Amino acid sequence: MSIPSHTPVNPDETKKKDDLVPDLPSGPLDTYRQKASFNWKDMVLFLEGEDQLLFKQRVFTALENDPLFARQPGEDLLLEQTRELTFLRVKQLFRYNFVSRDEAMMNPWKTVALMNCLGMYDWSLTNKSFLNLGMFSQMVAVSGSERQSKLLQDVEDMKIFGSFALTELSHGSNTRAMRTTATYDPSTQEFVINSPDFEAAKFWVGNMGKTATHTIVFAQLYTPDGVCHGLHSFIVQLRDPKTLLSLPGVMVGDMGKKLGQNGLDNGFAMFTNVRIPRENLLNQTGDVTPEGVYVTPIKDPRKRFGESLGALSGGRLSISRMSCINLQLALTVALRFSAVRRQFGPKNGEEVPLLEYQLQQWRLLPYLAAVYAINSYFKFSFTKFGEFSSGQMMKNKDQSHAELGREIHAVSCAIKPLGSWTAQKGIQECREACGGHGYLSMNRLGDLRDDNDPNCTYEGDNNVLLQQTSKYLLSLFQAKEHDGVPIRSPMQSVNFLDDYDRIMKNRLTAVTIDEFQDSAVPLAAFKWLVCFLLDKSRKTLAKMKASGKDDFEVHNESQVYNCRSLSIAYIEHTVLQHFHDFTHSPGVPVGLRAVLKKLCALYGLWTLSNHMTTLYQGGYFYGREHAELVQTAILTLCSQLKNDAVALVDVFAPPDFILNSSIGKADGQLYSNIWATILQGNKVLERPSWWKEFCWDKPEVGSLQAKL
Amino acid sequence: MSIPSHTPVNPDETKKKDDLVPDLPSGPLDTYRQKASFNWKDMVLFLEGEDQLLFKQRVFTALENDPLFARQPGEDLLLEQTRELTFLRVKQLFRYNFVSRDEAMMNPWKTVALMNCLGMYDWSLTNKSFLNLGMFSQMVAVSGSERQSKLLQDVEDMKIFGSFALTELSHGSNTRAMRTTATYDPSTQEFVINSPDFEAAKFWVGNMGKTATHTIVFAQLYTPDGVCHGLHSFIVQLRDPKTLLSLPGVMVGDMGKKLGQNGLDNGFAMFTNVRIPRENLLNQTGDVTPEGVYVTPIKDPRKRFGESLGALSGGRLSISRMSCINLQLALTVALRFSAVRRQFGPKNGEEVPLLEYQLQQWRLLPYLAAVYAINSYFKFSFTKFGEFSSGQMMKNKDQSHAELGREIHAVSCAIKPLGSWTAQKGIQECREACGGHGYLSMNRLGDLRDDNDPNCTYEGDNNVLLQQTSKYLLSLFQAKEHDGVPIRSPMQSVNFLDDYDRIMKNRLTAVTIDEFQDSAVPLAAFKWLVCFLLDKSRKTLAKMKASGKDDFEVHNESQVYNCRSLSIAYIEHTVLQHFHDFTHSPGVPVGLRAVLKKLCALYGLWTLSNHMTTLYQGGYFYGREHAELVQTAILTLCSQLKNDAVALVDVFAPPDFILNSSIGKADGQLYSNIWATILQGNKVLERPSWWKEFCWDKPEVGSLQAKL
Repeated sequence: MSIPSHTPVNPDETKKKDDLVPDLPSGPLDTYRQKASFNWKDMVLFLEGEDQLLFKQRVFTALENDPLFARQPGEDLLLEQTRELTFLRVKQLFRYNFVSRDEAMMNPWKTVALMNCLGMYDWSLTNKSFLNLGMFSQMVAVSGSERQSKLLQDVEDMKIFGSFALTELSHGSNTRAMRTTATYDPSTQEFVINSPDFEAAKFWVGNMGKTATHTIVFAQLYTPDGVCHGLHSFIVQLRDPKTLLSLPGVMVGDMGKKLGQNGLDNGFAMFTNVRIPRENLLNQTGDVTPEGVYVTPIKDPRKRFGESLGALSGGRLSISRMSCINLQLALTVALRFSAVRRQFGPKNGEEVPLLEYQLQQWRLLPYLAAVYAINSYFKFSFTKFGEFSSGQMMKNKDQSHAELGREIHAVSCAIKPLGSWTAQKGIQECREACGGHGYLSMNRLGDLRDDNDPNCTYEGDNNVLLQQTSKYLLSLFQAKEHDGVPIRSPMQSVNFLDDYDRIMKNRLTAVTIDEFQDSAVPLAAFKWLVCFLLDKSRKTLAKMKASGKDDFEVHNESQVYNCRSLSIAYIEHTVLQHFHDFTHSPGVPVGLRAVLKKLCALYGLWTLSNHMTTLYQGGYFYGREHAELVQTAILTLCSQLKNDAVALVDVFAPPDFILNSSIGKADGQLYSNIWATILQGNKVLERPSWWKEFCWDKPEVGSLQAKL
Repeated sequence: MSIPSHTPVNPDETKKKDDLVPDLPSGPLDTYRQKASFNWKDMVLFLEGEDQLLFKQRVFTALENDPLFARQPGEDLLLEQTRELTFLRVKQLFRYNFVSRDEAMMNPWKTVALMNCLGMYDWSLTNKSFLNLGMFSQMVAVSGSERQSKLLQDVEDMKIFGSFALTELSHGSNTRAMRTTATYDPSTQEFVINSPDFEAAKFWVGNMGKTATHTIVFAQLYTPDGVCHGLHSFIVQLRDPKTLLSLPGVMVGDMGKKLGQNGLDNGFAMFTNVRIPRENLLNQTGDVTPEGVYVTPIKDPRKRFGESLGALSGGRLSISRMSCINLQLALTVALRFSAVRRQFGPKNGEEVPLLEYQLQQWRLLPYLAAVYAINSYFKFSFTKFGEFSSGQMMKNKDQSHAELGREIHAVSCAIKPLGSWTAQKGIQECREACGGHGYLSMNRLGDLRDDNDPNCTYEGDNNVLLQQTSKYLLSLFQAKEHDGVPIRSPMQSVNFLDDYDRIMKNRLTAVTIDEFQDSAVPLAAFKWLVCFLLDKSRKTLAKMKASGKDDFEVHNESQVYNCRSLSIAYIEHTVLQHFHDFTHSPGVPVGLRAVLKKLCALYGLWTLSNHMTTLYQGGYFYGREHAELVQTAILTLCSQLKNDAVALVDVFAPPDFILNSSIGKADGQLYSNIWATILQGNKVLERPSWWKEFCWDKPEVGSLQAKL
């Protein structure tokens, strides 16, 4: 995805670069742009590569030119209008067909790039489209073998519209406890789908609210002998594609307004004796013969269900990417604002841009480092996920393949919380760092926060997911301890744990600010930290077990300050290790090395600073200086990076039309952009339609007191 | 405000208590309610008192019975509708006149109670009403002497509508830099108001968007000799009360959608040669003679401006209260949800309520402790503010009065950040702790978060305000060091600092979990912490000064990890000290003591746990156990408080109609309440109005590719 970068040697090359990465408009941001220590266009080319850049430009330009995608910053629409507009835009995507199915198979990164582009515009649009063409189609394709090819073609042609129905009103995280039933009736060779009561109504199903004609229902499969074979997935039709009216036995509707992503019509459904053909069972993990006998290649029902949910792992990795995008957009807004907005200044001197204030730097720049780091790790882990998925399709049964699967599961269950929480906190900080202007809808920080928020919840609640990661780490450690199995994994995220005994003896040795500005220092500290927390968690678990608590209690009471902290430290170490290696690799163009290394050191120190209590507690840190060195190094790096901040957001900022934020525009004309947007608003200067309510109908003060 | 509570001795008393505090409906929450260690009605009576309870009931009932206040959880309205509805409700408040002007003067707590009641319903309503009847009227009354009594009567009768215009498009925090001008013209005895350009347009003015006929404009006062006398306030008419059309020279309009509080029409205004009579200058701090000579009782122009902004201090204290209310509502929703929602459980056992999980307790219960603690401190500080305000009106010139003013300023500049950030983080945690259900608008957590958010920004950005507090502390310390002035203050928040030398020598001595469960342990640690941070900040400042930096740089580069941390630790200590004294005072009814003390200890330990790095760094903590003791004590207190959690939110929860959250209802019928709200929604089960867009107008896949 990346091309080697270097100082351009001839005018042709410069021109080509300018075509690929057009200049940004001149304005108040020039000062900082000129102060940047690196060439931002080189960074764009290095990180994105020519193909991807051209593709993104194509998508962005198409949206900008298409009146259906026109919008005003902070516009005010009713839910129904939002739903309609999003549907029409999704339909338009069929016409653009930016990535054909073949292209998507050949190059999954193209789909990622497309989703990023659309997501920067509006995640509802991306998700509405993806749940149909990606999730639904993929589940049908993978699990449904040849049976359902007609259906797949219908999705491609928008003859039908798909959704994915797992969650129920009373169950989310505990997926196995879903209560919808699918009972096989051999007399008609059909499954009969039922919702036992409204608490088992399918809930939160994207596209189900208004649009979906079909859904994949997860239901407990019962054979005629009354035996339950666990959760399986079934294709169920909800609405008539000719009328969008619901089918008999299906009560389907819209869940109403959410905090964000309101273009996506999340819905619910209850089923009363809805009959579907036997073939609608997605039979990858189990099937029922026409006579009603259950057959499966996987004996363990728990494992069977796990297999059918395998597709969700890629989703979790992607959520870390989506979160990064949200944070990138928020940082673009906040840092461009901070570079132009001036407030206070030295006595009798000019007012100073907010970005010059140490406090403002400290509030924002670590998040800037975080998106660079996490995004870089996403690319790596998603590549590995691609390898794993190919292996799955090839029915790879190797031990190493299974190990890769376990590691990706552990990583995805932690990178999703890390990404979504970092974005959640970072966007909030951006909102506050822009003061009142951050509170205006037209500047988009509210939408970004609201649209990012479900990333903390869906595809597994963050706190619940983290438990999977610590389980993985503890099991590796136990295998080594009990059976002498060396700790090693395909993505190498755990290999250092094999060196546990030596690492635990380490203490901080760096003593100068210069040393601390190298990411090797926090990296070494993180290795110790993960080992320490692993040991602490293990001992806590053992102690609880010894006290006679059952497994359920032991598990629950060893999360806070133990397993949960372990999972977080592990993924932070993993991301940092990767970004450290990346920024120190010879492939990085000379002109970009310094700034990338600084970002890496800042990310490492900043995340480490949340764990300093533990570092002191375990004796890795000692004395007054150690914490102070970390803090001084963070502030020093912030002050060194502040002149690069604008260029660093220019690297990932989409065109103004996509960013859709008055204060975030590339020309930096903060105030005239706000002013223009306000005056372009609806009836801004008009008196209110209800003016007579003020002017004519005066209240008699206290007249309603008799009612009290 | 409080009455002594005791075990009721006769049925009459019980009946009276039940009338004052009606029973809550029976349902799934009964289990936890029965497990509570204290009588929640006794707590209500103890904290609120009979008069206030009756008053609140009256307000709540009036709103619930009035169709104008009817609403559906999560309803979907356009901005214009929201503005109109809020205006009509404000008008209705004139008719109820819940608190007459005389009553408000006699008992300021009644106004506080009213604002709380209305705020629980909707902060836009409260703020819209308060900016007119409170802020505008008060400024006119206090500063305008007898000149403007007709105006005040017109406000009371809703003949006119007021607002308060300080902030400009390009200036907020730096109030002194406002650029609107008021130039005196002796030939007509008028001031001429001008906005030099749109960057100096008044901005963010509540009520100005659509409603205000008048505003108080802060402008630089120029006398005919061309001398600028600094910022003064002027009454300026914006619109004709007969038509709500803007007056000549006034360009006034609506700023559009905000992240929250959309019922309040924030607006902007630009003035072009708008002439107002000389008498419209609010002349408390300075006046202009008919001939154009400037006269003032206050020589220092900086002090003059400070005086005119004195009214804002009470606002900052109130913001901590408003924030607490928001967090109380969010906790009511999240804890009732957690008590009923079940997910996972021991093998082959029943599923367990979320509230039984240590992780869920740890996420929510510290915030519950925080609202009890901060709210308690608000009551104390607001009483002190009342005393200070009376002194101001009586023109009290005592030294002690001035000292009280300084202390209240320092306290208000820190309690506002503490309150608003605690609420911001707490509401977000509540949102996430309710999973997907927390993301549904009908459950109100989104609105609470959005409506709370500006508390971090208006009346002074949190980070900017905190600088005032540390300045105060450092100045006291310097006065002691240089001139031997003992550190003492009217509210006694700083008195312990006089014992600095002894405190700095202290080290943690508590060694058992039992000891740690007493708030005295974190309280002692906080005293050391504030001293340590004071010393650290002082040394950092001195070091920077010695390195040759100017005052501006020195100030800015000593905030992060120094002055900012100092201000936060100081206010946390202040709140904790007050709550510790309160919970340990003999006036607390016996039956409530245990639970209140636990809340206090939890609040103390939890806030302290954010500072453990510093405690280790300075040697107050040492060895592995200390941090672990804090953590274990937090978890132990959480587990002890979980059975009280539902009763503790019942204490402050408003009636269901006011709370307006399906999952937060007092009957705990989580799922049937969600289900009912969904089905009561608009066109939930109908096909979308745009169904033909799906059924008829099919896209030709790829047809727009030619456009790319």
